[in-house]
Amino acid sequence: MSETQMPTARTRVVREADRGVYDRETVHRILDEGFLCHAGFVVNGQPFVIPTSYGRKDASLYIHGSAASRMLRQMKEGISVCITVTLLDGLVLARSVFNHSMNYRSVVILGKATLVDDPKEKLAALRILSEHILPGRWDDARQPNERELKQTSVLRVPIEEFSAKVRVGPPIDDEEDYSLPTWAGVVPLEMVAGKPIDDARLLPGIESPEYSRHYTRKR
Amino acid sequence: MSETQMPTARTRVVREADRGVYDRETVHRILDEGFLCHAGFVVNGQPFVIPTSYGRKDASLYIHGSAASRMLRQMKEGISVCITVTLLDGLVLARSVFNHSMNYRSVVILGKATLVDDPKEKLAALRILSEHILPGRWDDARQPNERELKQTSVLRVPIEEFSAKVRVGPPIDDEEDYSLPTWAGVVPLEMVAGKPIDDARLLPGIESPEYSRHYTRKR
Repeated sequence: MSETQMPTARTRVVREADRGVYDRETVHRILDEGFLCHAGFVVNGQPFVIPTSYGRKDASLYIHGSAASRMLRQMKEGISVCITVTLLDGLVLARSVFNHSMNYRSVVILGKATLVDDPKEKLAALRILSEHILPGRWDDARQPNERELKQTSVLRVPIEEFSAKVRVGPPIDDEEDYSLPTWAGVVPLEMVAGKPIDDARLLPGIESPEYSRHYTRKR
Repeated sequence: MSETQMPTARTRVVREADRGVYDRETVHRILDEGFLCHAGFVVNGQPFVIPTSYGRKDASLYIHGSAASRMLRQMKEGISVCITVTLLDGLVLARSVFNHSMNYRSVVILGKATLVDDPKEKLAALRILSEHILPGRWDDARQPNERELKQTSVLRVPIEEFSAKVRVGPPIDDEEDYSLPTWAGVVPLEMVAGKPIDDARLLPGIESPEYSRHYTRKR
């Protein structure tokens, strides 16, 4: 599917269409700031939505099969999924209840998820996942052995059919409401990392690495 | 559906089954700390997952129809949905890549979403939604007029078929890995509110309300 076809009828933003964004650069930026997605799939007509971590490289998104075992059981050659990533940036308080909103950046990807079978490719995908969440960790930790690799399943979802939705800025009130004596504005929200908690069984003298002490998604 | 039937075959946690939680109290506590859900539904066999805010009262979860217009178009008497709420509490860094994990609390609700049609019930549901996200705001803001109420659609999802999944605590490593000179532990993550940003068109002397200055989901 070529870039110029975005959005498709399925990914076109319907509500608040002015918030729709369809360029790959914006979509990749949102995907790279997040690391938790909600993966949707269908079993016997019933939708399931499962939270799981992901990694991105180029136009591929990788998720653990482990988080999608219900989905994996029935897939042989790809299953239709929807991968949604949402970054919440703030509560938008307008003067009217009706105009309350949120600031957020979200991405929706539609596609077929396929199993990454080849062991080399699977190892590479797991490294992408790990480095996406916590750059530097892969080389510090004991890497997967053959048994662990076999136990792990990884899915690839192509980033081909997608859209983003972005809201930024202050509340937008109806003109006549601006005279109301009501506070209006934005309460910013951010995912913040706290001080790393040492495991109780650390060997003496082992200090928390830099990447765990200043963890942030903003790059 | 009676409580004692939880989990159903559809909501039983398959992977890491020891993390499955099925009591209503835990589920309500998670739902009440969150306010953003991912709503999954199916159109022509394709799953869609849309982020949207929600409110809860008793065994009812309410979402804006506005965020689900694609879904609403085709629903007359209820549509199968999956509502998933995820609270992320930390990155869990084990000594092996394989045992890396996250601390989180998530809820999955399966059910039929139905339109709240009655204007009084709709207004009550909107109040529940508003107060769920920001207690105190409803009375401060201009409340919905008739025109706005008509423009707004609200869905009710019964909290009847559900499960929660919870992981807390330190990494669990393979016994032989505890001798590795690798740091292990938890990087706590939390959604934190910043200082409220005044709207540029505030009337003179209007100060940000208490509920906007100390916003937290922990209660």
